[in-house]
Amino acid sequence: MSQPVDTAVSAVRTYIAQHRVAFLDDLTEWLRIPSVSAQPDHAPDVRRSADWLAAKLEETGFPTVEVWPTPGAPAVYAEWPAADPGAPTVLVYGHHDVQPAAREDGWDSEPFAPVVRDGRLYARGAADDKGQVFFHTLGVRAHLAATGRTTPAVHLKLLIEGEEESGSPHFRALVEQHADRLTADAVIVSDTGMWSEDTPTVCTGMRGLAECEIRLYGPDQDIHSGSFGGAVPNPATAVARLVAALHDEHARVAIPGFYDGVVELTGRERELFAELPFDEERWLRTAKSHATRGEAGYSTLERVWARPTAEVNGIGGGYQGPGSKTIIPSSAMVKLSFRLVAGQDPEHVRKAVGDWVPAQLPEGIRHEITFSPATRPCLTPLDHPALRSVVRAMGRAFGTPVRFTREGGSGPAADLQDVLGAPVLFLGISVPSDGWHAPNEKVDLDLLLKGVETSAYLWGDLAEHWRHAP
Amino acid sequence: MSQPVDTAVSAVRTYIAQHRVAFLDDLTEWLRIPSVSAQPDHAPDVRRSADWLAAKLEETGFPTVEVWPTPGAPAVYAEWPAADPGAPTVLVYGHHDVQPAAREDGWDSEPFAPVVRDGRLYARGAADDKGQVFFHTLGVRAHLAATGRTTPAVHLKLLIEGEEESGSPHFRALVEQHADRLTADAVIVSDTGMWSEDTPTVCTGMRGLAECEIRLYGPDQDIHSGSFGGAVPNPATAVARLVAALHDEHARVAIPGFYDGVVELTGRERELFAELPFDEERWLRTAKSHATRGEAGYSTLERVWARPTAEVNGIGGGYQGPGSKTIIPSSAMVKLSFRLVAGQDPEHVRKAVGDWVPAQLPEGIRHEITFSPATRPCLTPLDHPALRSVVRAMGRAFGTPVRFTREGGSGPAADLQDVLGAPVLFLGISVPSDGWHAPNEKVDLDLLLKGVETSAYLWGDLAEHWRHAP
Ligand SMILES: [Zn+2]
Ligand SMILES: [Zn+2]
Repeated sequence: MSQPVDTAVSAVRTYIAQHRVAFLDDLTEWLRIPSVSAQPDHAPDVRRSADWLAAKLEETGFPTVEVWPTPGAPAVYAEWPAADPGAPTVLVYGHHDVQPAAREDGWDSEPFAPVVRDGRLYARGAADDKGQVFFHTLGVRAHLAATGRTTPAVHLKLLIEGEEESGSPHFRALVEQHADRLTADAVIVSDTGMWSEDTPTVCTGMRGLAECEIRLYGPDQDIHSGSFGGAVPNPATAVARLVAALHDEHARVAIPGFYDGVVELTGRERELFAELPFDEERWLRTAKSHATRGEAGYSTLERVWARPTAEVNGIGGGYQGPGSKTIIPSSAMVKLSFRLVAGQDPEHVRKAVGDWVPAQLPEGIRHEITFSPATRPCLTPLDHPALRSVVRAMGRAFGTPVRFTREGGSGPAADLQDVLGAPVLFLGISVPSDGWHAPNEKVDLDLLLKGVETSAYLWGDLAEHWRHAP
Repeated sequence: MSQPVDTAVSAVRTYIAQHRVAFLDDLTEWLRIPSVSAQPDHAPDVRRSADWLAAKLEETGFPTVEVWPTPGAPAVYAEWPAADPGAPTVLVYGHHDVQPAAREDGWDSEPFAPVVRDGRLYARGAADDKGQVFFHTLGVRAHLAATGRTTPAVHLKLLIEGEEESGSPHFRALVEQHADRLTADAVIVSDTGMWSEDTPTVCTGMRGLAECEIRLYGPDQDIHSGSFGGAVPNPATAVARLVAALHDEHARVAIPGFYDGVVELTGRERELFAELPFDEERWLRTAKSHATRGEAGYSTLERVWARPTAEVNGIGGGYQGPGSKTIIPSSAMVKLSFRLVAGQDPEHVRKAVGDWVPAQLPEGIRHEITFSPATRPCLTPLDHPALRSVVRAMGRAFGTPVRFTREGGSGPAADLQDVLGAPVLFLGISVPSDGWHAPNEKVDLDLLLKGVETSAYLWGDLAEHWRHAP
């Protein structure tokens, strides 16, 4: 390593060490606010959380800080322009609401009374997502302190929403409403994680999501299976045959047109995935599953990160109580979710599903399909200059090579990509054992400070290597 | 017609005409007792119903009448030996309990306040089964009066259970307990119906029933469909594929061994079915269905009466509430019922299912199968002498040719066949529009009296043509 890098690193680390205690005290204070967006009782807490963050961002130095109302919970917006008008503009996305949590769910301490044990901070939201939002506050100050600046090297914007854990019902409208304020050359999402403590990674894509509920109708009411069984179509059988037809014998989705446009993995991407220290037994334990199964010709990681899927989230029809009831049910339903990858258009998938369903049904079975709003997939090209900056910043912070992952889930980040037309990048330092949405959610304090450090290096690197935004 | 027959007929009819009013008054009184076996509140009413019937059978002349307790509701047993010890013994089966009913379910009058409108008696139990049990009381008295006897021409036994509408949970044990009292050369079940008012028919068989619940287990808890979707087996998909594999492309049950032993329809039986004035459009309206569908190569009537089936009564797994939930469910289940026909052994079917299920499942999906107690099929050979007697007795009462049907449902009659080793015959005068288990259940008074008349002719005919029981 060359001398200048060492100097910058030690300046950042010194600053962080000096401010570590106050930073953790502040975060702890924020984590005490039970900003559970899914529970109407906590609506005042979600608003309090937004106000708390807004005040803290002002304290951090952001010259513009606003709380943006929505028909639901408010978001927080902050802006800190660079001195150089030609610097790239970066929008950081995160969320200040949290999943529900109660001591009796299996927590070893109160979920909203943060406590440090063995270098880990336990609290609901510690990792998802308050800890990861908050590291940017100390990050930008360390960036300024280490470089002697008074403004960040990039035009920095933050948008921290308050309804992510409730499905972000008003997020897209919010982004559309404020699109002129939110314009950016890149979006940095800090709401994901890394491979493990030992293997820092950058996520380069999230799958999209199209969901639907299909209801099938047979007899006008439940009818007797003795009197009519064997002679009329049964909607529960029909729904089962529909679901069975979803996949072919290679576990590929069998809906014609489903794979249209899919961006296939490159050889390089497959190599990068294969370099990860993947332990299938361990992965299965995390998945609480007893075997792997998926599309032929792809590894487990490829299947969850880079291949589209069709999954049954729920199926139902007829009598499901104790004992038996000799009926042919009048209706049955299935809830399907399709994970989408880059190149797939949710509208096209919706149409493909809509065409496919009736073709599978026997005469005498009527159907209804209801689609939920879809989420688009996003994918960062491996050679994108902003991605290279994220990788370099993280590499400096962790001191080990940074590898690449993707995310199998879907998130509102795609709305930012869609509306703002900016590439989405992911900077997350959480690890799989942090227990998102589970009891005893925690964040490792050393990793959290690596997040601060990454944030501190990132803005300068971006400004240096990506001066002329595309 | 020869003179002696006419004389017998007119004697029976005269007797019935003389006693018609008292008979209907008595039945009305019985129908006022809400003997709903499925509702614990009505347990005293079911006991009252048994006592009422016992008293009435004593009044009718049965020298032996007993109320037989069970762990649930009591049955009524009565015996009236013939003078000739060599006469055949006939056991009449019926039930004195009824389905639940409430005015607000859509009844035009109170279900337990019988009322006659347009020659039809409306009340819960009017057709199923009090009316059809009760016609035997006036029937046997008309038989005695018309023939000048003081005892019936056959050894007559009645077993009227009190839990049929609750699935007869204690019936088999009751029959086993009293097997020595119940021995019979034939069982006459009066708990079915005929084709229509214009087409008197005798039912010659009921399907059997084997039921099971299959539970499939995948992940140890619901897991996130984004993080794991496409890479682990989904039990909801597995249950759907299992159900889809139940039938082949000809809608035949695809479980190996399922059809073992099935008694195929004879050409004569198919001809007899085809002679019935079957109107498929009308049948579909009754089935409240929008198409027929079933095993290739068989007509609708053959499918419901004489072919075994596999039907889904319920299916479920994962999230079934409003909106969506992106999970791979940890389990899923299906409730299947198999209707069985003569020659099929429920034990063999159970084994076939038990062998078949695991062979359909992907690695990583565990299963559990729970079978309910099975009901065997029963089938009366068309050339059985007792069947010929039933047909002749009915033909005399109705004055038109009697045709043959079967019953697609299953009933406790099969227990009598099994335990007593006696053939089961069906004598029912109800018609499909009588609304069994539905609001405004009724019985047509003219048909009810045809039932009385058939009963009056039957015992003499049996004694005459089947004197030496096999
Ligand atoms: Zn989150
Ligand atoms: Zn009945």
